[in-house]
Amino acid sequence: MNRLKVEEALKHFLIEDIGDRDVSSVIFRETDIGEAIVRFKEDGVIAGLHCFKWGYGLLDEGVKVELLKSDGDYVKSGEAIVRLTGPVASLLSGERVLLNLVQRMSAIATLTAQCVETLGSSRTRIVDTRKTTPGLRMFEKYAVRAGGGFNHRIGLYDAVMLKDNHIAAAGSITKAVDRVRASLGHMVMIEVEVETEQQLQEAIAAQPHVIMFDNQTPETMTRWVKLVPSSIRTEASGGIDLNKLAAYRNTGVDVISIGALTHSVSNIDISMNLSVSSKEAVFV
Amino acid sequence: MNRLKVEEALKHFLIEDIGDRDVSSVIFRETDIGEAIVRFKEDGVIAGLHCFKWGYGLLDEGVKVELLKSDGDYVKSGEAIVRLTGPVASLLSGERVLLNLVQRMSAIATLTAQCVETLGSSRTRIVDTRKTTPGLRMFEKYAVRAGGGFNHRIGLYDAVMLKDNHIAAAGSITKAVDRVRASLGHMVMIEVEVETEQQLQEAIAAQPHVIMFDNQTPETMTRWVKLVPSSIRTEASGGIDLNKLAAYRNTGVDVISIGALTHSVSNIDISMNLSVSSKEAVFV
Amino acid sequence: MNRLKVEEALKHFLIEDIGDRDVSSVIFRETDIGEAIVRFKEDGVIAGLHCFKWGYGLLDEGVKVELLKSDGDYVKSGEAIVRLTGPVASLLSGERVLLNLVQRMSAIATLTAQCVETLGSSRTRIVDTRKTTPGLRMFEKYAVRAGGGFNHRIGLYDAVMLKDNHIAAAGSITKAVDRVRASLGHMVMIEVEVETEQQLQEAIAAQPHVIMFDNQTPETMTRWVKLVPSSIRTEASGGIDLNKLAAYRNTGVDVISIGALTHSVSNIDISMNLSVSSKEAVFV
Amino acid sequence: MNRLKVEEALKHFLIEDIGDRDVSSVIFRETDIGEAIVRFKEDGVIAGLHCFKWGYGLLDEGVKVELLKSDGDYVKSGEAIVRLTGPVASLLSGERVLLNLVQRMSAIATLTAQCVETLGSSRTRIVDTRKTTPGLRMFEKYAVRAGGGFNHRIGLYDAVMLKDNHIAAAGSITKAVDRVRASLGHMVMIEVEVETEQQLQEAIAAQPHVIMFDNQTPETMTRWVKLVPSSIRTEASGGIDLNKLAAYRNTGVDVISIGALTHSVSNIDISMNLSVSSKEAVFV
Amino acid sequence: MNRLKVEEALKHFLIEDIGDRDVSSVIFRETDIGEAIVRFKEDGVIAGLHCFKWGYGLLDEGVKVELLKSDGDYVKSGEAIVRLTGPVASLLSGERVLLNLVQRMSAIATLTAQCVETLGSSRTRIVDTRKTTPGLRMFEKYAVRAGGGFNHRIGLYDAVMLKDNHIAAAGSITKAVDRVRASLGHMVMIEVEVETEQQLQEAIAAQPHVIMFDNQTPETMTRWVKLVPSSIRTEASGGIDLNKLAAYRNTGVDVISIGALTHSVSNIDISMNLSVSSKEAVFV
Amino acid sequence: MNRLKVEEALKHFLIEDIGDRDVSSVIFRETDIGEAIVRFKEDGVIAGLHCFKWGYGLLDEGVKVELLKSDGDYVKSGEAIVRLTGPVASLLSGERVLLNLVQRMSAIATLTAQCVETLGSSRTRIVDTRKTTPGLRMFEKYAVRAGGGFNHRIGLYDAVMLKDNHIAAAGSITKAVDRVRASLGHMVMIEVEVETEQQLQEAIAAQPHVIMFDNQTPETMTRWVKLVPSSIRTEASGGIDLNKLAAYRNTGVDVISIGALTHSVSNIDISMNLSVSSKEAVFV
Repeated sequence: MNRLKVEEALKHFLIEDIGDRDVSSVIFRETDIGEAIVRFKEDGVIAGLHCFKWGYGLLDEGVKVELLKSDGDYVKSGEAIVRLTGPVASLLSGERVLLNLVQRMSAIATLTAQCVETLGSSRTRIVDTRKTTPGLRMFEKYAVRAGGGFNHRIGLYDAVMLKDNHIAAAGSITKAVDRVRASLGHMVMIEVEVETEQQLQEAIAAQPHVIMFDNQTPETMTRWVKLVPSSIRTEASGGIDLNKLAAYRNTGVDVISIGALTHSVSNIDISMNLSVSSKEAVFV
Repeated sequence: MNRLKVEEALKHFLIEDIGDRDVSSVIFRETDIGEAIVRFKEDGVIAGLHCFKWGYGLLDEGVKVELLKSDGDYVKSGEAIVRLTGPVASLLSGERVLLNLVQRMSAIATLTAQCVETLGSSRTRIVDTRKTTPGLRMFEKYAVRAGGGFNHRIGLYDAVMLKDNHIAAAGSITKAVDRVRASLGHMVMIEVEVETEQQLQEAIAAQPHVIMFDNQTPETMTRWVKLVPSSIRTEASGGIDLNKLAAYRNTGVDVISIGALTHSVSNIDISMNLSVSSKEAVFV
Repeated sequence: MNRLKVEEALKHFLIEDIGDRDVSSVIFRETDIGEAIVRFKEDGVIAGLHCFKWGYGLLDEGVKVELLKSDGDYVKSGEAIVRLTGPVASLLSGERVLLNLVQRMSAIATLTAQCVETLGSSRTRIVDTRKTTPGLRMFEKYAVRAGGGFNHRIGLYDAVMLKDNHIAAAGSITKAVDRVRASLGHMVMIEVEVETEQQLQEAIAAQPHVIMFDNQTPETMTRWVKLVPSSIRTEASGGIDLNKLAAYRNTGVDVISIGALTHSVSNIDISMNLSVSSKEAVFV
Repeated sequence: MNRLKVEEALKHFLIEDIGDRDVSSVIFRETDIGEAIVRFKEDGVIAGLHCFKWGYGLLDEGVKVELLKSDGDYVKSGEAIVRLTGPVASLLSGERVLLNLVQRMSAIATLTAQCVETLGSSRTRIVDTRKTTPGLRMFEKYAVRAGGGFNHRIGLYDAVMLKDNHIAAAGSITKAVDRVRASLGHMVMIEVEVETEQQLQEAIAAQPHVIMFDNQTPETMTRWVKLVPSSIRTEASGGIDLNKLAAYRNTGVDVISIGALTHSVSNIDISMNLSVSSKEAVFV
Repeated sequence: MNRLKVEEALKHFLIEDIGDRDVSSVIFRETDIGEAIVRFKEDGVIAGLHCFKWGYGLLDEGVKVELLKSDGDYVKSGEAIVRLTGPVASLLSGERVLLNLVQRMSAIATLTAQCVETLGSSRTRIVDTRKTTPGLRMFEKYAVRAGGGFNHRIGLYDAVMLKDNHIAAAGSITKAVDRVRASLGHMVMIEVEVETEQQLQEAIAAQPHVIMFDNQTPETMTRWVKLVPSSIRTEASGGIDLNKLAAYRNTGVDVISIGALTHSVSNIDISMNLSVSSKEAVFV
Repeated sequence: MNRLKVEEALKHFLIEDIGDRDVSSVIFRETDIGEAIVRFKEDGVIAGLHCFKWGYGLLDEGVKVELLKSDGDYVKSGEAIVRLTGPVASLLSGERVLLNLVQRMSAIATLTAQCVETLGSSRTRIVDTRKTTPGLRMFEKYAVRAGGGFNHRIGLYDAVMLKDNHIAAAGSITKAVDRVRASLGHMVMIEVEVETEQQLQEAIAAQPHVIMFDNQTPETMTRWVKLVPSSIRTEASGGIDLNKLAAYRNTGVDVISIGALTHSVSNIDISMNLSVSSKEAVFV
């Protein structure tokens, strides 16, 4: 991730929660120093560890951050992932925001890893979609990578996806691909979505970079894959989640895109335990 | 929601997805006009409808937005919630971002409504927490309200929550509350978290505005509620989700706070169906 | 104050004054090093000292800032509050902006301290209002605290104030309070403004957290305070300034809110005296 | 004022006060329409009227704003300056911020007008300084103009002011002016500050555009003015306020700069009276 | 171009030039209305016409903008491209910024069109590079398209370019491509730069999407093109400008990338002629 | 240049190019350290060296930047200007943006230096105009200074330029200057543009600070200069470029303004050569 963009985002998130000040911190003195251990409370794959380093760096350069794991590591419940030392007031002011972010990123990485594991030795890859949380795309696509998945296009700007409306407006798949190829540079990937075998045949003839099989059974996909020449990548899409994934393992598609990776995850439970070194609090 | 802040956020979200331009839209002419109907694909409670109005307003003033429901409405699968008419290119450029946002908001509203329904005639309220998605707190807290829930504090700045670390630093609950009261103005709510009956007794004596029972059984909570004078509000907290909620229905606490409302929801499925009025596409 | 927000503001303020560059600094060489002493030119209470540290930190990490006082200290005319050493060009480029800010903050702290002193041993507290300078609320509310005062609500978002228009729209104080309580969460303070004894009685019955006596004589306030049960806080408001304050000392109200603390202060005179170490200037 | 900059500032100020939402507005329905009259509560000169138009325009395009005066007008206590009609919730959400701003601007315009009046038929002009409130320079310098005053340099970037430190670093006034002239373009005004007659003589010989007499008696200034050739403008400066101003009326200086115009004003009292058209409030 | 991003940029550019206000506009009254005609002063291809519409829209909604040409049109010296009517002060305040922008965009479009024309009937395309003016990439890449060229990758984020350093770090072209393919999703284009025929052979075997021939003679390129299978696109690069271009016309490469399109253009001369309707100016 | 503004701009430029991440950098390990030498590939005057220091400082504090020249130095083709050491991935991520910026700045400095040289021993100065690239004015005006030129006004806000439209609106040059002088403060420079000798005579009588001779022959200018009293500066303007400049060398005008300095330069060729210390790349 581009650190400049990460820091802009973290600054925004920290200000969202802290506002003008953390009123509860009036309890603490500047000399109240603490050590905090951040631990997984359930098994999962960690993603976003550097957010602790960069987030606390923005908040208070006096907080020392030691990362105990690497992104993509499988962490058991109870294991520590970060050790923090520094002013208690700062440790607590950043706690919730950074946990909220890393819990979500780790949930995405964990679900991705489960999907990857389900595919086993298959050469098919798991990819994400544009169904990300507004404002968090960079973080969520990173988490997919940390979990062993791959990224689909970043946004509307870096690749073409021709869906039914585009095809209807152009008149046919052939016309749509031709027009896109005529308008856009040689560095833009072109993907066509097909829903019937007739569309598939037309798409193959149009030679896009990728053909997406939308909402088909594993059987159909298996059959369709064989029709597509090796110079075109194939993508399975449409409501596939962890439960349905195994059925698609042997279809032979190049990638399976899963919106649920980013739009429907339950946060991984992560907690921070703090011990304070000095006890005689005074008003700040 | 403050429209000025909503628009700042929507602008940021739309730029995140569209970037310099929607390359697929080269298919369309400026005169390609379409009508799009946004529908729920599953039952749920809608929240965030105005985001369609404001979001498309930012993108293209030529898009007409007609809201067919109101936030908080229970919508059946298949029902339409918004009708849009305008340039096809603009309708498609805004589609994914606004669906991502409203799907998440509606998921939160729906889960909140289920929690509220579970409580039945109880006077206990459902409230949210600070476990919101970074950057989306305003939207997510709004969605909780749309679902019939209430908001806990907004952030670290508008209310005090005294947890174990604060109490340890101050020396005791009494000292902690006294110090906070001595430091902060009369408009700041003070809440104390208790984990044992001894702490509860000390908290009652300190007279904060709210006492939170952290991670207690329904039986304990029921007993503790009776010990607290009516001038102090009581809150049940700690890993309570929709499944466990029924057990807490009759504890008599004033509010039950549920982090899962915002940190662990699966997006409500919402889709946009578009029909294009003009067919002869040319390059733009 | 949240340092992240303070630094955003200071950056904005410094750019406002310096623009593309300080043209007068062409006189100095990079090696012209100076020492500057910042002194109070009149007696007062200091607030905002850290702005020197953070502001010069943004401008030039080569400037060393030594704070000689603490916020809230009473400073005599002529006393030094800060010692700065570093490149002369940087010292001068930041001088005016930081003085403008700290002079205003210290003026607010000083006036607040005078108000607090006027109240003497009374348990009544001095609080601010929302009549702050646009863009400076965080700084000005901090200055009130540095002067020994307390903060009222931060903005429109963190507490309810029911005034005549709200009450008229709802139909009565009772209805207004009931509706607010029905709509808003348990962490939102509710204050009601009353102008007659009849309103006071109705307000007491409605049990808001705070009742504000608007524009009443000290005598009326004294009488009214006795009618209000101890579970409700009382606030005196309406054109009370330092001159009129003594008359309200013994009314028994919990807080007296004073708009003049932030909307009508004369800056404390503070100046920076600079001595340059190297004399042979060249063009930069 | 540059409307683009004004609107950026107003958006920032409105978000500072309203935050995520105005919680008190839950009392009102969207259909509660009101009329508000903004009135001066004391005599003064109005400045900043367009802020009502632009500010409410940002908040709610449904608010109609009618300006009843022009900036620079002398307004008697009780006179109306603006009539607003629109949703009550929006009228109240913008009220405090816009009053805070216009009260300050009008205070500055009023004090400026008093200074101008004090000078009577003198050709000497009143000018401001850089002692403005951080973040508000554009607004405050506009207010000075509305009150009949003129602006000094905008910031450090648009004109040179050579003070003791610059002169010391350069070695002499002559050297300082020469160096500045050698370094900077022909569109940069050069002003030199003098404290003794010897410095004055040296300054005159160096031929800057403006010479500032710092902290001199009216008698000295009168004498010095006569020594300065007509091609150089003269400025009186140094702790001159409304009280001391009359003494400087006949010194013959071109301008008198007064820091107090912007750093030490008491807000003009302005209030908004609102009448609501519909009474049956419901929850929003 | 994404209008939301264009408007953000235009706002920034207009504020850069206008600052707090256009001081020269004190000459004009609000009722001074004018008509301005924007004309090409030399032959060229126009790009960026909508910037007049959007830019003046931001500055003053009272300015009416009529576009007389379309982007990509070839315009003869003396021809009008835009007619503006509205307040003279606003017309003049926006003039320079918008001309600066459109002059540069039109220069880029014109040079691109010259390059395209030079290639004649060749199927080779002209593409841009990342050698754009900082802050203007979106505008400059749009101008290339308006001139008949195509865009290379947008930035470092949407496609891979493997140069000598990448290859050295990986050990070989084969290893570099393999690693990239193993790390990145299926939507990322991979391009390899080659400087020798041996590298070319290795690159062909590695099957990237594009191979770039860096700094080769037309003869070498012609020979190399024949070695590359049709599934891989070829790009000529390295110091090719309008003068050298003809020599590359028949090499058979798919695209020729030309940095000079954006890094070394002389602005097209465009001027605005204004006629004012009302003559009796007063001070504003 | 104001470092705070420079860093804001550099952050914006770097994010424009890098986006969410530099995908090609997956080739490198964090431990791949490199040394890069930045060299001029043609002769020229360097401007903007500190951008390397500040830009890499923003991107990665682990990059060490050693500046080998000073801004304004004449650099021969092949000479090194900067030595960088640090993580290869960071060196490459910042390379293009910083080269794009410094190449343009150096091109401006070089052209300026050529103009200055052309004037030889003449006391006439070269100045820039407002024909700068949108968003880069601060950088481009700095580059003009680095090349030995001087700056004209910064923008519309810091000086008055009375052109035909202003004069027409006011009625005459005399009226225009009088009105401006009556409206604006004593620190605002006033310049009048004249196109005929009659206008010149009128302008001289009006006594502005500067008179601009617009589009006149060298002979006319030479004659006109003699008519202007020494208290008024003279400026030659109108399509003067490096080729035509020599003819104006002896006209005696104070400054010659040249739009081409900033609107029509060809980037100086600068390249970065990188050598990597560690070779065994792994995936990041």
